[in-house]
Amino acid sequence: MTGDASPAVDFWYEFASPYSYVAAAVIEPRAAAAGVDLRWRPFLLGPIFARQGWRDSPFNVYPAKGRYMWRDMARRCAALGLPFALAAFRANFAEGRDIGERATMAAIIASLERDPEAVLARAEADDIKAALRGATERAMALGIFGAPTLVVGDELFWGGDRIEDALDRARGA
Amino acid sequence: MTGDASPAVDFWYEFASPYSYVAAAVIEPRAAAAGVDLRWRPFLLGPIFARQGWRDSPFNVYPAKGRYMWRDMARRCAALGLPFALAAFRANFAEGRDIGERATMAAIIASLERDPEAVLARAEADDIKAALRGATERAMALGIFGAPTLVVGDELFWGGDRIEDALDRARGA
Repeated sequence: MTGDASPAVDFWYEFASPYSYVAAAVIEPRAAAAGVDLRWRPFLLGPIFARQGWRDSPFNVYPAKGRYMWRDMARRCAALGLPFALAAFRANFAEGRDIGERATMAAIIASLERDPEAVLARAEADDIKAALRGATERAMALGIFGAPTLVVGDELFWGGDRIEDALDRARGA
Repeated sequence: MTGDASPAVDFWYEFASPYSYVAAAVIEPRAAAAGVDLRWRPFLLGPIFARQGWRDSPFNVYPAKGRYMWRDMARRCAALGLPFALAAFRANFAEGRDIGERATMAAIIASLERDPEAVLARAEADDIKAALRGATERAMALGIFGAPTLVVGDELFWGGDRIEDALDRARGA
């Protein structure tokens, strides 16, 4: 938590997590409407899943869960209309592009009117990679096991279905 | 689906599933308010989890997920006030009793003003056990991998957070 008194929620998300995509698409206006500061916390699920014995996404490890997830995602996106989506998520999940490819990321960055080479060089810098690894360790220490997870103090809220609960908690409601 | 035209939802639940308990406690009035027939479908998660390589509940296999689940359950129950709960779930989760014990079940049945010996003899009959195994096979064939799961036609809705979606689907909303 920050030193000031304004309520805040940490939004832990993963660019390879479909449900992070849906939550990212709706959380900003909801947090604003609730008067809650939103802190974006990127992290990696890979090392957390590996610790659980998975070498892949649970949606691939458990095919029934994977089939369900894609159907559920299709319904959620249709129901929400996704009034906006962040570029990297959209590229991966709405447009089927591989965000592991440097060229894909360069095109996304260019579409946001930023300089691809400068942004990619920064993203690939050792201190940034170390920060992401550190964030992932922090996520693990907090008990995070999936994404998205919202954190208020030491309370975890797993999944987009808990956004309102997390915002209520942050406001002391 | 039945032959008649009234909208219906199959509610697949497990007595050892904490989230089945919460959903069971709230689903009946919601289905009634939506004008949707509710069909209670007990099944066993054990054989389904075994197929996924788990010898225990995922809440035990993955301790971080288990810790989260108990905290989330405490919050959900507090928020909902649980205006009613079915006796076996309540005994297991609210009162910490072992519903695998015959004496526990006999006491629960007696509290419902039924004859424990007659009900238990029926529950232990071969045709009832076969029916439960059959239901579990059917759940697996439907693609069910957790509980509760609501089924409308061939659409699955996993978890108590999808109750309204399932009822909307059943009504063609």
